[in-house]
Amino acid sequence: MNNLYHHSKKDFQVERVVLFSDAVFAIAITLLIIELKVPEIHGASITEHSFFHSLLLLLPQFFSFVLSFFIIGLYWFIHHKMFGHVINYTNKLIWLNLVFLFSVVLMPFTTAIFGEYSKPGYEMLLAPYGVYVFNICLTGFLNFLLWSYIGNPKNEVTEDFPQGDFLVKAKIRSLLLPFIFIMSFVIGIYIHPIIGKNFLFLTPVIMSLVRNKKTVTPKQHKKPDIKI
Amino acid sequence: MNNLYHHSKKDFQVERVVLFSDAVFAIAITLLIIELKVPEIHGASITEHSFFHSLLLLLPQFFSFVLSFFIIGLYWFIHHKMFGHVINYTNKLIWLNLVFLFSVVLMPFTTAIFGEYSKPGYEMLLAPYGVYVFNICLTGFLNFLLWSYIGNPKNEVTEDFPQGDFLVKAKIRSLLLPFIFIMSFVIGIYIHPIIGKNFLFLTPVIMSLVRNKKTVTPKQHKKPDIKI
Amino acid sequence: MNNLYHHSKKDFQVERVVLFSDAVFAIAITLLIIELKVPEIHGASITEHSFFHSLLLLLPQFFSFVLSFFIIGLYWFIHHKMFGHVINYTNKLIWLNLVFLFSVVLMPFTTAIFGEYSKPGYEMLLAPYGVYVFNICLTGFLNFLLWSYIGNPKNEVTEDFPQGDFLVKAKIRSLLLPFIFIMSFVIGIYIHPIIGKNFLFLTPVIMSLVRNKKTVTPKQHKKPDIKI
Amino acid sequence: MNNLYHHSKKDFQVERVVLFSDAVFAIAITLLIIELKVPEIHGASITEHSFFHSLLLLLPQFFSFVLSFFIIGLYWFIHHKMFGHVINYTNKLIWLNLVFLFSVVLMPFTTAIFGEYSKPGYEMLLAPYGVYVFNICLTGFLNFLLWSYIGNPKNEVTEDFPQGDFLVKAKIRSLLLPFIFIMSFVIGIYIHPIIGKNFLFLTPVIMSLVRNKKTVTPKQHKKPDIKI
Repeated sequence: MNNLYHHSKKDFQVERVVLFSDAVFAIAITLLIIELKVPEIHGASITEHSFFHSLLLLLPQFFSFVLSFFIIGLYWFIHHKMFGHVINYTNKLIWLNLVFLFSVVLMPFTTAIFGEYSKPGYEMLLAPYGVYVFNICLTGFLNFLLWSYIGNPKNEVTEDFPQGDFLVKAKIRSLLLPFIFIMSFVIGIYIHPIIGKNFLFLTPVIMSLVRNKKTVTPKQHKKPDIKI
Repeated sequence: MNNLYHHSKKDFQVERVVLFSDAVFAIAITLLIIELKVPEIHGASITEHSFFHSLLLLLPQFFSFVLSFFIIGLYWFIHHKMFGHVINYTNKLIWLNLVFLFSVVLMPFTTAIFGEYSKPGYEMLLAPYGVYVFNICLTGFLNFLLWSYIGNPKNEVTEDFPQGDFLVKAKIRSLLLPFIFIMSFVIGIYIHPIIGKNFLFLTPVIMSLVRNKKTVTPKQHKKPDIKI
Repeated sequence: MNNLYHHSKKDFQVERVVLFSDAVFAIAITLLIIELKVPEIHGASITEHSFFHSLLLLLPQFFSFVLSFFIIGLYWFIHHKMFGHVINYTNKLIWLNLVFLFSVVLMPFTTAIFGEYSKPGYEMLLAPYGVYVFNICLTGFLNFLLWSYIGNPKNEVTEDFPQGDFLVKAKIRSLLLPFIFIMSFVIGIYIHPIIGKNFLFLTPVIMSLVRNKKTVTPKQHKKPDIKI
Repeated sequence: MNNLYHHSKKDFQVERVVLFSDAVFAIAITLLIIELKVPEIHGASITEHSFFHSLLLLLPQFFSFVLSFFIIGLYWFIHHKMFGHVINYTNKLIWLNLVFLFSVVLMPFTTAIFGEYSKPGYEMLLAPYGVYVFNICLTGFLNFLLWSYIGNPKNEVTEDFPQGDFLVKAKIRSLLLPFIFIMSFVIGIYIHPIIGKNFLFLTPVIMSLVRNKKTVTPKQHKKPDIKI
């Protein structure tokens, strides 16, 4: 009986790492909104039209907000799937996870830079966009490292980890988003900054092409059949 | 015994989706307050009276804060009831939920727009109010989609989902709040902006009329009777 | 066996109310800090002395931050004890809890008002302090209502709720903090604003006098003795 | 059977303290980022170069952000390990934990002071750095007090608490970070402010020297072997 208790306690310790990560994800994804400031009406007369005009000027920032919301959401989703396999933890896993969360926490800041410098008059600048691309690459790379650590049976942090090419595919997907953003940045440098940035609109298309192959692990579709 | 363990692990995966959603709800509902700024005293003399005067100028923003607090609270409450039936999850459910949360996270921003442009001098503007109404409609519509997805037995994400007209009523209630706000907006356009916005004061009345029929699902009133 | 599952599901639904409340408490208590702004050095020369001087000017705001931190902490603590007895929930309990959380979420705003208008030059104003006192009273009164609802056996939300004068004492304690603040406000009006506000320094003393009698419920001191 | 239920309820009460702490940690660590403001371009022409220049000016603030992120992360990690041994709670433990969290919540504020006054022109000031050092020392000392309280068998809040020099080592490690920062501050006073602050770059080295001896408690490496 005592073993059940200890098992629960250890399980709760793993869950606490997961729930702390979830809280950081949730706060980072919600903090994105405070960078969107209420549009101020410029000009003498306050009309419906002048409000709409000042709202339109927010569009580039709104675009960067939406993009980052779903990128953080995607990494939360991957983190959720990843830690669904984790039943144990080591000091190294916790620190690796913390460095990964560091990169996630940076997102509201780099998103604000990207949004601010996408406003009319700044749209030809590539350096602010480069800061954002760097953040995406860092997050993707750390996600890759997390998969490598968790998928390595020597670290003994999982149970029944899927065999075959599951891990290889997961690692490749980790690097997909960085790859898209680097391509977009390279197009920005060698062809045109605005074409490069608009390349991002293809992201959902590319992601969904790969997502089709990302099948759910069999365990999740099993109906709960408890027998004691 | 091993099955119990796997069952818990899968349960925890569903719970993690719920707890992440809760965290986003909690942060969005609390972030509303940072849009309320400390009133500044204008004029030469600092008196109790001048403080009260500047506090009164905050009333429209305070009203929009209270409104959004209880709207987010209501959607959290519905989400809580809804996921009380969910025992499984699919990729599609997670992404639908994420899009729903996106609409919730937008609320502090659209609330700030609504509040800012309800100040004296702006009260005749309908466009800022329209942005807020749009956000309410988006949230309600996504809530409707979530009920449709969860209530569809083909998706296999629930167990013992209530039969009869439970789902129909839940879907109708999802669209009630958008309906009230669209009516208020239409009144604002065709009759008078201020009458339209004040129409919202009827919201609690309309909601409670419908709430009376929203009975608790029987499971919740059962006393816990555990027998192994 | 199925009963155990349902039991867990219902328990999780109660827990979700509690965890949502905890998240709101945690965010409100942490948001207090963002009202404390980095002190700016005024004057021509930047010296250690001028930094210290500008830091000292923050003291009234720091005092209001510390006060609110421990008041929110106290209400979290009481909420924690209160919901330790709750094993069921009703729609009414959830909405009462939400109104209570509304009052907690207001705290960073009223704390900022209190802090801002305690700065040198404003210290004789009582109206900003009155806003803060009103918030404390609202929170205390809603806490009183929560105890009344939960302690009422008709509502069937508890199990093994302590008999005797436990509930009476809990209700009285709910109104203690409002009582202290109202006294401090009355002293401020009839004697002197600064004496009234400094009366608050007695709060920990008064609280601890009452706390001594606040014994832990016996259940908490029991060692876990599990037998199946 | 009833005992299992009570056990879970009490366990949940301990978990709620832990999860509330986690939420505060998560919010404090994420709020650090809102002190990093989007760099503004000064000067007539907007070029990639002028953006990079204004980004470079943020470096001192970025350094203080990174430092505080990993310090809060470290204390979360220690808190996680510490409460892994806690199976019971007392009023005193909850209040001690709350005072500890108070010190953690202060971090975004003192980090902002440290970052702001590390900018070019202020780098010789020691007082702002002293405020930050004070915060680190307070957090470390309260961590020391928490270990002392939890490790004391009289308080009956743990089960199977590790014997031997585990507690002594944990207490010493609590005071290590304060010690490093006080040394850095003393070097700043008696040798040179900039040398003192740069001494902090040695922190990871010193920490890892001690970390090598910080072995994981044996319970965590056990494979879950459940037998009923």
